[in-house]
Amino acid sequence: MSIPQSKPQHHELFAQRTKVQAGIAAFDFSGRTVDTSDVIALNYGLPDGEFFQIPELTEAATKALQVDAARVLQYGGGSGSKRILEYLAAQKTTSWNIATDPNDILMTSGSSQGIDLIARLFLNPGDEVWFEEPSYFGAIHIFALNGATERGFPMDEEGLLVDAVEQELKNRKATAQAMPKLFYVIPNFQNPTGLTMSFARRVKLAELAASYGFYIVEDDAYGELGFDEISIPSVKAIAPEHTLYLSTFSKTIAPGLRIGYIVAPRVIIQALQKVKAEGGTSGFVQEVLANFLESVDFSAHLKKVRTAYRLRRDAMVETLAAHFPKEVTWTNPSGGFFVWVTLPPYVDVAKLWEYAIEERVSFVGGAPFYVSEGSGAQQMRLSFSFYSPNVVHDGMVRLAKSLRNYLDDTPQVRPS
Amino acid sequence: MSIPQSKPQHHELFAQRTKVQAGIAAFDFSGRTVDTSDVIALNYGLPDGEFFQIPELTEAATKALQVDAARVLQYGGGSGSKRILEYLAAQKTTSWNIATDPNDILMTSGSSQGIDLIARLFLNPGDEVWFEEPSYFGAIHIFALNGATERGFPMDEEGLLVDAVEQELKNRKATAQAMPKLFYVIPNFQNPTGLTMSFARRVKLAELAASYGFYIVEDDAYGELGFDEISIPSVKAIAPEHTLYLSTFSKTIAPGLRIGYIVAPRVIIQALQKVKAEGGTSGFVQEVLANFLESVDFSAHLKKVRTAYRLRRDAMVETLAAHFPKEVTWTNPSGGFFVWVTLPPYVDVAKLWEYAIEERVSFVGGAPFYVSEGSGAQQMRLSFSFYSPNVVHDGMVRLAKSLRNYLDDTPQVRPS
Repeated sequence: MSIPQSKPQHHELFAQRTKVQAGIAAFDFSGRTVDTSDVIALNYGLPDGEFFQIPELTEAATKALQVDAARVLQYGGGSGSKRILEYLAAQKTTSWNIATDPNDILMTSGSSQGIDLIARLFLNPGDEVWFEEPSYFGAIHIFALNGATERGFPMDEEGLLVDAVEQELKNRKATAQAMPKLFYVIPNFQNPTGLTMSFARRVKLAELAASYGFYIVEDDAYGELGFDEISIPSVKAIAPEHTLYLSTFSKTIAPGLRIGYIVAPRVIIQALQKVKAEGGTSGFVQEVLANFLESVDFSAHLKKVRTAYRLRRDAMVETLAAHFPKEVTWTNPSGGFFVWVTLPPYVDVAKLWEYAIEERVSFVGGAPFYVSEGSGAQQMRLSFSFYSPNVVHDGMVRLAKSLRNYLDDTPQVRPS
Repeated sequence: MSIPQSKPQHHELFAQRTKVQAGIAAFDFSGRTVDTSDVIALNYGLPDGEFFQIPELTEAATKALQVDAARVLQYGGGSGSKRILEYLAAQKTTSWNIATDPNDILMTSGSSQGIDLIARLFLNPGDEVWFEEPSYFGAIHIFALNGATERGFPMDEEGLLVDAVEQELKNRKATAQAMPKLFYVIPNFQNPTGLTMSFARRVKLAELAASYGFYIVEDDAYGELGFDEISIPSVKAIAPEHTLYLSTFSKTIAPGLRIGYIVAPRVIIQALQKVKAEGGTSGFVQEVLANFLESVDFSAHLKKVRTAYRLRRDAMVETLAAHFPKEVTWTNPSGGFFVWVTLPPYVDVAKLWEYAIEERVSFVGGAPFYVSEGSGAQQMRLSFSFYSPNVVHDGMVRLAKSLRNYLDDTPQVRPS
């Protein structure tokens, strides 16, 4: 063949918006390859596969193919399969007090795709998306990929400091500057902090969205994984017209199904459907999910996993209290998968990571969770979801040891 | 609750790039709702569910969950599941003469997502994507959604008129204008025309890509559905460094799995992986597919469906020859799902559609397959894939009758 095989300059051809930092690659500070075989990995936000309901999913898959395979395996398109949309509408309406019609829902390939579709629908290059800080690095990455200008606002124990947001909105208005288009929040058991936004803050944020004309993107991936009976109304329930609500079955059933969904005003769902250009979320998997949800006692399942995850959280925070120096502080989440740890200012978390890997334990450092450059250097996210309480305990003991080793090796960093 | 429920001006907030025409909605000229229960639908490009291998898929799904559910149902990420990547690499290398390593492949949610990811990776607003015309409306829509400026080049019986492309490239170079970034083609059994690009044209296009520095996006959705033994080397085999190759299991196994893939130079695969922001294609479905492909005689299956689809094509073109006026012309595809019909210049295909629906048969008019405004008014795409030869025959007889009815009702349009 006579085609000259010159190597094109790939990177010169790539779009500008792809030149954002890939936050998601930041698990590993050093970039070196680590043999992970005996590492207790507290970095990934994984549900424990022990809770996957294998026999029930197998039966659901078999049934999907036996009852109506010619339809289930055909092109689907639209916003989703009818049965799953109806299940979700009923569930959101009754359990979550979010009045929802099947036409207000779009099925997505996990809630990551939901974030991506919202970004695609709303963002012109440079449009602003605001965040509570720290926030989920996947969302920060996806919005950036879609050309967003990003800005973070601080949090305290009650979640986002909404007063700081209001102040900035007022300034913007007074000086005729552009408003944000979207505000991305994770009100329940936030990733990475595990914090929950108070009811008063939610109401206030909703009021700001209504007054200043932006949308709240409410990511509720962990909403069904609260450890206590108390549950705060979602922002979507408070201000349905101003909120784009995202959730997923990845944490409660299994990530590998890749099924999430968006609940939003119908006009938005219709517009999102038009920008969802991948031919639809797998109809087969949607049918498996519908069969599964009809056949199992999902409330009982949720109760079981909540109890299990609560015990893992307990193991993590108890070991933090028992084995870490008093200058280390942490959040005590009432749900979800994560504890957020703040180390003393003299600890360099990237260096600590090297010591942790030596002790066969891993975590994610704070930096990728920040929009603001240079933040997160003393923080780390620890996930307690994947291992039994004993293993979580052992992992935390290893981490405490690696912190001691680090401090012993570098006494000069510690103030005398 | 005190939140003022003002309706935000959704459309004012939407991104500019979303304001493209949704070609995919153009199936129905009139916009009116049609009761489709007894319509022979020759519009959709659907594989026949009769060829879905239900027992084998059921077994594959059961096995996926029994052998290693905790892994299969977990977060996957990366470019795809190892087994399916290895299967594809081996298959492309041996059967298609495309030397492929698993690292040169990215699994996608159908090939539509493949198109979307390529568009996202390469296109800044206004960057040019070129097409053979007519072309697949889904691709035209997806590239437009990603901000492409689109331009079409004519075809003849040997496919794309590459000389016209070369002329334009020369003009661009001489006048220092911007080059296209991508050229999207469907060389085998094209959608919508059913035409196949000749070997000489493929080589020439590959040479142009190498000389002028653009990528060929080769959509090979129908490549395994050729009716004859002859098979022309893919553009990817001719110029691997300059071609991004797309395919899918939607036509050969089942669309509802939503599994397609991209074969491209490794540096491109790695970059595509970074812009694939939906958390990965379902690991569960990839495992089902791997089990399925290992357990069935896929070559025998392909042989069976090729034979079946060939008989359907025969039924369609024979009925065209027997029942349509001599001014009507059509392509005679050697594979795939589609016949492209050109009506006499005095027929308005949008009006014919109304007559067709009266006779309970449907088709897609030519317009959405063109980038160029105002083209396709005398053309229609007919799909023979979904029905048995008898039903295809009946549908074509109905279509012939609706053409007669239309011409009888509007004698003035016919030149005397």
